[in-house]
Amino acid sequence: MIALLSSANSRLHVSNQLSLSNPLPMQVFFTPGPAQLYPTFETHLQQAVREQIGSISHRSKQFRSTYQFAVEQLRELMHIPADRAILFTGSATEIWERIIQNCVENESAHFVNGSFSKRFYEFSVEIGKKAQKFEVPFGQGFDISQHTISDTAELVCLTHNETSSGVSMPVADIHSFKKSYPSKIIAVDMVSSAPYPELNWELVDTAFFSVQKAFGLPAGLGVWIVNETCLHKAESLKQKGFYIGTHHSLPSLWKSYQNYETPATPNILAIYLLGKVVQDMNRTGIATLRKETDEKAALLYNFLKTSDVYSIAVENEAHRSATVVVATVENPAEKIAALKEKGLVIGSGYGSFKEKQVRIANFPATSAEQIEQLIRTMQA
Amino acid sequence: MIALLSSANSRLHVSNQLSLSNPLPMQVFFTPGPAQLYPTFETHLQQAVREQIGSISHRSKQFRSTYQFAVEQLRELMHIPADRAILFTGSATEIWERIIQNCVENESAHFVNGSFSKRFYEFSVEIGKKAQKFEVPFGQGFDISQHTISDTAELVCLTHNETSSGVSMPVADIHSFKKSYPSKIIAVDMVSSAPYPELNWELVDTAFFSVQKAFGLPAGLGVWIVNETCLHKAESLKQKGFYIGTHHSLPSLWKSYQNYETPATPNILAIYLLGKVVQDMNRTGIATLRKETDEKAALLYNFLKTSDVYSIAVENEAHRSATVVVATVENPAEKIAALKEKGLVIGSGYGSFKEKQVRIANFPATSAEQIEQLIRTMQA
Repeated sequence: MIALLSSANSRLHVSNQLSLSNPLPMQVFFTPGPAQLYPTFETHLQQAVREQIGSISHRSKQFRSTYQFAVEQLRELMHIPADRAILFTGSATEIWERIIQNCVENESAHFVNGSFSKRFYEFSVEIGKKAQKFEVPFGQGFDISQHTISDTAELVCLTHNETSSGVSMPVADIHSFKKSYPSKIIAVDMVSSAPYPELNWELVDTAFFSVQKAFGLPAGLGVWIVNETCLHKAESLKQKGFYIGTHHSLPSLWKSYQNYETPATPNILAIYLLGKVVQDMNRTGIATLRKETDEKAALLYNFLKTSDVYSIAVENEAHRSATVVVATVENPAEKIAALKEKGLVIGSGYGSFKEKQVRIANFPATSAEQIEQLIRTMQA
Repeated sequence: MIALLSSANSRLHVSNQLSLSNPLPMQVFFTPGPAQLYPTFETHLQQAVREQIGSISHRSKQFRSTYQFAVEQLRELMHIPADRAILFTGSATEIWERIIQNCVENESAHFVNGSFSKRFYEFSVEIGKKAQKFEVPFGQGFDISQHTISDTAELVCLTHNETSSGVSMPVADIHSFKKSYPSKIIAVDMVSSAPYPELNWELVDTAFFSVQKAFGLPAGLGVWIVNETCLHKAESLKQKGFYIGTHHSLPSLWKSYQNYETPATPNILAIYLLGKVVQDMNRTGIATLRKETDEKAALLYNFLKTSDVYSIAVENEAHRSATVVVATVENPAEKIAALKEKGLVIGSGYGSFKEKQVRIANFPATSAEQIEQLIRTMQA
């Protein structure tokens, strides 16, 4: 592993200088989240300890500055307009619940092509809404021209990157919904792809992600980007007597956010680390990060194309994810175990696909050199 | 600060050996949460980094062992019976919401004597339940013999330690409710006192806390202890068509817990650190921790009794909190600032009491020597 780490991208790894004696062999995680931590994570964690971030009050100026910093860095990285609130929850899963509660009076529409987009749909049903479902088999994407959303649906739920199957919805497709359905709220699950997709925020009302995927941080924080259309919808639902949540209703979160605070004590350490890692990403630049993601994805897909052992699980090239690459293989558990022996941890297939697939995350935290090392080892 | 740290309780501080060059002056936090981190926190954090806890899957054996370890350590420390589930949420605030959703069909009853017990009551109203409220002025406790809970209330919400006012409900009072109301669910908010109060779990159906108070950890994890009575209530509510939550409904959390998993990716790092810190607490022993808490509380209250500047805010001695000591003082902001200059951070009064009170946390993370140092500085 030493060789692998030292051969890795020097820009990415320059700050990874934890000077502790480390008796454990370090592994490199290519799992689709929790995932490899961003190379600068440890440096920022040490600084957080020095600054006693774990003890500061969530009602202090220091916390408000920490929240504001994370917001400003995210705005820069993802070009999020100033009129969008950036809110924090316990997880992206919680955001599914909060979006349905706050943005749907009667009906939502869902594009379902895997376990996570399905769960978002199920949340709407569990919350008691009518939910329209457009479903294609696992591993497939959508021909969106084939689906007509009900006039009565108020919210359209799209999954940019279906983490379970490695299927991505092209950004152009995502953008087309607002044009076809200007009065509907467009929600984009970008849990395992942000900040990679270049969304046009004029065509997206709300989007969300969690930090343990492409941001390379420990789990425990959901990030919810939301516009005033959603806020007004939530306020009107509340006025009509609908239950929209307590501390994490959208109006409650938004009100606190205006002061860079949160309704309850949040995961302050994670917010601090997010701001710092996103600052590092901004130093690299989003264009470079996207280009590197594309290049690393090409390495992986080119390997799978030529491999006798692995094959690409997503047939339609236009729907292949750049950030979660799924491969079909015999005896995946054996393959995963053999790689793990060499310190390379890849993900199993999701649910019943554990028996025939593996998933390889391609997040910014792993360098091209590490991806190449993985490919060489998979080839061996 | 060096002198203060080196004079501190050696048992508590023996593992606090972060060998990083630290250019920032370290402060000691006597704030009621987020609070001073447990002395062994940094050691465990370093080990978590070595073990790559931030990257492990929440569906892995390693995570299940981590969850199980935290549960076992908490059971030992707080004598929690094996039939109680121990569940994790994003915050204790979230647990207020989940308890009301899962344990109340029509009506809850609340003993309100400060901002947090009031917020729990308000959550019930916001969720659309009928909520009975017994309210006494800020700074006062209850004469529970004076209050009769409605026959129709299904849930009784008690706050062992009202963090805003420093008022505690005696454990004997808490235990008396089950005897008087055997068919009602008894819920105990022990957010800023656990593991100090010695609850008889036969007389309590559910209790909860967050980790950034007396457990001395960074914020971002709520811990929910719950029995099968609550689970069955939630299941019956669901059957009747009530909305009880999605991923964090009690049945969903409980089902995952049986496998030591969580419905969504949780704050894995916090669960790991909680298990480790509670193991340290078990090494000390709960009896010792309670005795030390009592002794340190006596130091603080004795100081306040004899001070010309500060006075005890809670008049009734039986209702004075051992873990959050509240004092009345003129110009509290000035006092807080002067102490902060010397590296001693105490809490402001809550809400409008910011103008006349300070709050001093007495959690296990601060030693008797540190409390004595604080008192000497407040006297100077």
